[in-house]
Amino acid sequence: MRKLNKIQELVKKTGVDEILIYNGGEPSLELNFFYLTQLFDSGLFEESYLIGDSDESTILTSRLEEFSAKKSGLNVSVYKDGKERTAKISELTKKAGKIGINMDYFSVSAFNKLKENLKDKEFVDISKTIQELRMVKEPKELNILREAAKIASESVEAILKDLKEGVKEYEIAALLTYTMLKNGASDNAFTPIIAFGKNSAEPHYFAGAVKLKKGDFVLMDFGARYQKYNSDITRTYVFGRANDAQKEMYETVLTAQKIGIENARAGRLGKDIDGAVRNYIDSTKYKGLFIHSLGHGIGLATHDHPGFAPGYDLQTKENMVITVEPGVYQPGFGGVRIEDDVILKQGGCEVITTANKELREL
Amino acid sequence: MRKLNKIQELVKKTGVDEILIYNGGEPSLELNFFYLTQLFDSGLFEESYLIGDSDESTILTSRLEEFSAKKSGLNVSVYKDGKERTAKISELTKKAGKIGINMDYFSVSAFNKLKENLKDKEFVDISKTIQELRMVKEPKELNILREAAKIASESVEAILKDLKEGVKEYEIAALLTYTMLKNGASDNAFTPIIAFGKNSAEPHYFAGAVKLKKGDFVLMDFGARYQKYNSDITRTYVFGRANDAQKEMYETVLTAQKIGIENARAGRLGKDIDGAVRNYIDSTKYKGLFIHSLGHGIGLATHDHPGFAPGYDLQTKENMVITVEPGVYQPGFGGVRIEDDVILKQGGCEVITTANKELREL
Repeated sequence: MRKLNKIQELVKKTGVDEILIYNGGEPSLELNFFYLTQLFDSGLFEESYLIGDSDESTILTSRLEEFSAKKSGLNVSVYKDGKERTAKISELTKKAGKIGINMDYFSVSAFNKLKENLKDKEFVDISKTIQELRMVKEPKELNILREAAKIASESVEAILKDLKEGVKEYEIAALLTYTMLKNGASDNAFTPIIAFGKNSAEPHYFAGAVKLKKGDFVLMDFGARYQKYNSDITRTYVFGRANDAQKEMYETVLTAQKIGIENARAGRLGKDIDGAVRNYIDSTKYKGLFIHSLGHGIGLATHDHPGFAPGYDLQTKENMVITVEPGVYQPGFGGVRIEDDVILKQGGCEVITTANKELREL
Repeated sequence: MRKLNKIQELVKKTGVDEILIYNGGEPSLELNFFYLTQLFDSGLFEESYLIGDSDESTILTSRLEEFSAKKSGLNVSVYKDGKERTAKISELTKKAGKIGINMDYFSVSAFNKLKENLKDKEFVDISKTIQELRMVKEPKELNILREAAKIASESVEAILKDLKEGVKEYEIAALLTYTMLKNGASDNAFTPIIAFGKNSAEPHYFAGAVKLKKGDFVLMDFGARYQKYNSDITRTYVFGRANDAQKEMYETVLTAQKIGIENARAGRLGKDIDGAVRNYIDSTKYKGLFIHSLGHGIGLATHDHPGFAPGYDLQTKENMVITVEPGVYQPGFGGVRIEDDVILKQGGCEVITTANKELREL
């Protein structure tokens, strides 16, 4: 039996006649367009469509992307304006009665336009099935993710020497980004968080003009994008000698993070893995200061399914890739977060972010 | 009369009782959440809401973003889980009959959930009104955009010395990114395009491991993000001496780009500005090789409204900010694109990207 590609697999699993995936473009990318076409190297594919059935698939795009689209090996159809685009969508779907779309992505406006064009069709939401496909990574995806994690890990180790008194947060962000790009990343996975001193207590801080001074926490949360897949790692250091309060906070989070790693494996509920870590932190003086989830899936999106979070019922499977990132935050004092990316296996996990995480005084 | 903030202005213009703006988070950011709250410095605001009427507004977010949200000066309400979030949305909208939402952003799934929670409400699409507000920039926004353009312009000039034989595309992408971040950018506006030689003929190429060699076109299309606003600039150079074919292509595009700048002003139709440039290119030997639109609005999104494009009927207004970027592309040979960002004025425009654009042989 021939191996199905992802598009065919999706058609088969959802029982639709055809799938229609629409990518509007930045700032709202349809990552499934890239996932299903496997176009990871070039192209923005604004206002582009992937239309496929159990037999063959076509990318409908503008002339601007024709060259990039052909790299997919799928059929490519080029429209010259909106009118022709509408006509081609109608033509490409003419045999289908039941069309699968991702209703988590389609905006209400875009869906209304589509329904107006394709009046006699039944639309089926295939978002959950795509999500399930994407959650479990294939060997090729795991290798890309390992590389993304390696780039981030090696880059942070390489720039520790540049953490000098007076350097600004955004200068370190620049240097870290530069180092990751030199090491093969195509981009940051997200805007890096570089937080000195008490800024480390704000989990979604970015990087400002604050200068590094002795005794500061240095919290760095960043990642590399490689072939459109992302890594996400956080390390917290102390610049100079750590005082007792810093040491206690750090060791508590490190212990919590190790509990998370021990618990991360296939066949468990996300909420139980989160709970194991949360219970530990709540048994310490930092009770209540772990104010976010333990982890999130990672892949084409930096924040993806599934989650390690309170109330998250989904059972983990082998080859899901997830972050493990407990943190505690004391406004006015500072915060510590330690984050790794792990590949879930039966009975354990593979930690793919390798940067040293014992307490480092720089 | 007190000055209305953007939220109040939107409520007044659309005639709704209340607006409800939802931000899901990466990779589908609701930029209007940031626009209306003016939160440009920190925070990701995943699963966050802005709910406001003509009187007051509330940001509904998780504890993770509480600190960042308070910087807005608006009311902040924190939910601890999805159940409480749903209850709070219902409570915050209880007086409203008619609720304005952005149907260009709300996914079909998210809208269905909202309707289930708020059963007795009428929902009004306010996307066009927000779009109109955002297209015309205020003085504060123009200054941010000028700075974003300046960072990009100065950064490309600074790295020309690093274009040496054998350097790889991605190394130049890394260096350019680093330089922009050092110069104050918070991020790339988008993944930079650095294309050597014949790669320059692919408009949405990114950057690869190709090495620079004598006689190559060097096309760089990139931008700086500064306070969440973006610049977008393209320059094309020749490494070494340009041959006659390269010179002719370059001078044609440069003339076309100058025609674009001369035509860019308030009170015209986007399609006419595009047409002036397209007609010129189509009168040369490069007829038909200008395969994209002349320009796009720029602001919180890199590709924003309005457009300079065939069929684009919208009349331009003062203080719209738009790119002017003709290009011609010859597969197998190479391409030239020259792009500036301009602020439209009555009778002309202000070019805010200042990097030299005469033919440069490096």
